[in-house]
Amino acid sequence: MTGFPDAESYARAALTYLAEPGDVRLGALIRTRGARQVLDAIKAGDVTGAAAQRAMERWRVRLEGIPSAEEVAGFCRSGIRLIHPGDPEWPGQLADLGDAQPYALWLRGTADLRFNCLRSVAIVGSRAATAYGSYVASEVAASVAARGWTVISGGAYGVDAAAHRGALGADGVTVAVLACGVDMPYPAGHRDLLDAIAAQGVIVSEWPPGWNATRLRFLVRNRVIAALATGTLVVEAGRRSGALNSARHARDLNRRLMAVPGPVTSDLSAGCHHIIREWQGVLVTSAAEVIEYLSPLGAPREDQESAGARESAGTREGRARTGSRAAAVLDRDELAPETAAVLDALPARGGIGPARVAVRAGLDLGTVVRCLGVLAAGGFAERCDAGWRLRRM
Amino acid sequence: MTGFPDAESYARAALTYLAEPGDVRLGALIRTRGARQVLDAIKAGDVTGAAAQRAMERWRVRLEGIPSAEEVAGFCRSGIRLIHPGDPEWPGQLADLGDAQPYALWLRGTADLRFNCLRSVAIVGSRAATAYGSYVASEVAASVAARGWTVISGGAYGVDAAAHRGALGADGVTVAVLACGVDMPYPAGHRDLLDAIAAQGVIVSEWPPGWNATRLRFLVRNRVIAALATGTLVVEAGRRSGALNSARHARDLNRRLMAVPGPVTSDLSAGCHHIIREWQGVLVTSAAEVIEYLSPLGAPREDQESAGARESAGTREGRARTGSRAAAVLDRDELAPETAAVLDALPARGGIGPARVAVRAGLDLGTVVRCLGVLAAGGFAERCDAGWRLRRM
Repeated sequence: MTGFPDAESYARAALTYLAEPGDVRLGALIRTRGARQVLDAIKAGDVTGAAAQRAMERWRVRLEGIPSAEEVAGFCRSGIRLIHPGDPEWPGQLADLGDAQPYALWLRGTADLRFNCLRSVAIVGSRAATAYGSYVASEVAASVAARGWTVISGGAYGVDAAAHRGALGADGVTVAVLACGVDMPYPAGHRDLLDAIAAQGVIVSEWPPGWNATRLRFLVRNRVIAALATGTLVVEAGRRSGALNSARHARDLNRRLMAVPGPVTSDLSAGCHHIIREWQGVLVTSAAEVIEYLSPLGAPREDQESAGARESAGTREGRARTGSRAAAVLDRDELAPETAAVLDALPARGGIGPARVAVRAGLDLGTVVRCLGVLAAGGFAERCDAGWRLRRM
Repeated sequence: MTGFPDAESYARAALTYLAEPGDVRLGALIRTRGARQVLDAIKAGDVTGAAAQRAMERWRVRLEGIPSAEEVAGFCRSGIRLIHPGDPEWPGQLADLGDAQPYALWLRGTADLRFNCLRSVAIVGSRAATAYGSYVASEVAASVAARGWTVISGGAYGVDAAAHRGALGADGVTVAVLACGVDMPYPAGHRDLLDAIAAQGVIVSEWPPGWNATRLRFLVRNRVIAALATGTLVVEAGRRSGALNSARHARDLNRRLMAVPGPVTSDLSAGCHHIIREWQGVLVTSAAEVIEYLSPLGAPREDQESAGARESAGTREGRARTGSRAAAVLDRDELAPETAAVLDALPARGGIGPARVAVRAGLDLGTVVRCLGVLAAGGFAERCDAGWRLRRM
């Protein structure tokens, strides 16, 4: 590497200063012309067409604020990194956002964003969560995190905080997607929580370091939470909660959408019930049901439903078996050959890193990382301090 | 009439003494040979075939206990009546039970069973209901009753009692289907409640007056609750609650099945969540949603769902309209001609009886009664002390 930032990274970093995220006009330009050429064009004011001209003026307003390459390098020395499409750590599922996908993401923290989002659940909800909502959020987060799933949330008070804390408490990985710079202690009361997330997971933002959150930015941010996660779980939300905005993004992105029910007498469960009644969200009551619904190893939901419909009256045992499927893992025989090879390469005790697994299994590192995610989700493998090992059954 | 009981009624009454309800062997015999001939055959021990012989012996054990015609007439003088298939008050939907349909029903109370079950909802749940469950049951019952829907339940403590009381408090009609004789004060603490139900609604039983409830009889009784009602709503139920048995009957009878969600931390909501997750029961949070789902005048559920799926992001207004559909009534233009004729015959103030409506509308009484049910469910008409009138919109 010839020193960071390279030209592509620098251009992407600069663009996060010039345009608010989700600007599909800029997204389309980057797609067709590339980030570096787009930055040059903005600098030069070089564009044809009235609409493009207006957009260009919008972006040029902020030209004075873009950092020098040295400043970007400085961020990285202070523990902040920048990723963009094409980077090994870039989560490919963000492409589902089309031209609204982030120009780049600023990250702070130890965890690999791409790998950890392979098996992830967004747990979101009201800032004004009740004791019930906070309890359920932290319990579900802790349980899914303990089984190798990453918990994604927004770093806010209430349900978000409970979800992050639950995952941290279970020694799991959690991702906070912020509407301000990754170095900003916002909300102020979450300074320690955000530092803990950075230490054990990763903080993500589309906005440059030092930038503040605004009301609109929270809404724009929500699409990234929904797009990163395998599925989204709304724990408690009023009918006008921002969490419903996240849920709608999840639905529109064809991500799996779930909600936790609550008392019909609680305004903060009204949004959850709306998701179940009107948006075909799945009612879930436990972490096991969340994993069952999200896991590609589990039987598809449709099969399960027809199995349920086939049940005749009185077969309570049959139903109990269906209910406990969440805890069941697939037969080793049903694993793909590569996944089985990775499983064979894992030690029962201690733990080895992915690179060593790759050597043992005779597979490339990317494949190994993917298979480890599958094995973790299926309950076959687990992460420990020393790396990866077989999960005690 | 040549005096009650006529031969058919007497035979049906006697059969309720001889066999436990739901005996499909007896049901099949009644279907093929008629109640009077079956009673004669049991008395004479006249049957061919080993299995039929064993069943016959089972029924003959109780032959000594059957009442005389004079005793049956005595029940009727004391305010208890007997109905059976073919009677004007017999609810035809019980035929969905096939050979397990009741041989006859003993009734105590003022309300017409057939008419009042045309638009009815069974509200059932745990005897050990929480304050939450009792509150929701009575609120929903009061609201649906106030809009002309009959509340059916089992007369037990907990959710059942709350449902009955809610309907009574709203001056509505409620039906208690018991697992003991209609004259039995069971449970003892419900003596006054049962009398109030008889005064304003009707008490129903398959068992003769004076008979006691048993554990098995509660389960057998549940199929009648499910079959009588347009739909069944489970308010609070543990995973092993008898209410799930009612729910399963409703599902197997293709009745509409609904459940009220609650905290996932409450064992008494686990059965409700199971119904929603595994039995495709519809999550409901209000009386309006119950009526919306049950009303044949409302848009079919399927249309609504596709409408929901068609919504694109951001059309919050469109969704709000969908949500408020529960309160909306159909256009008068969409009513069937007979129903519209009955509507035209109703006064705005005061109130007139169905017979007078029939004269005004030029329709027979049966049609008028049916149309009044449709109009009440649609929010066009309401019952008052003086009879029926237009509902103030």
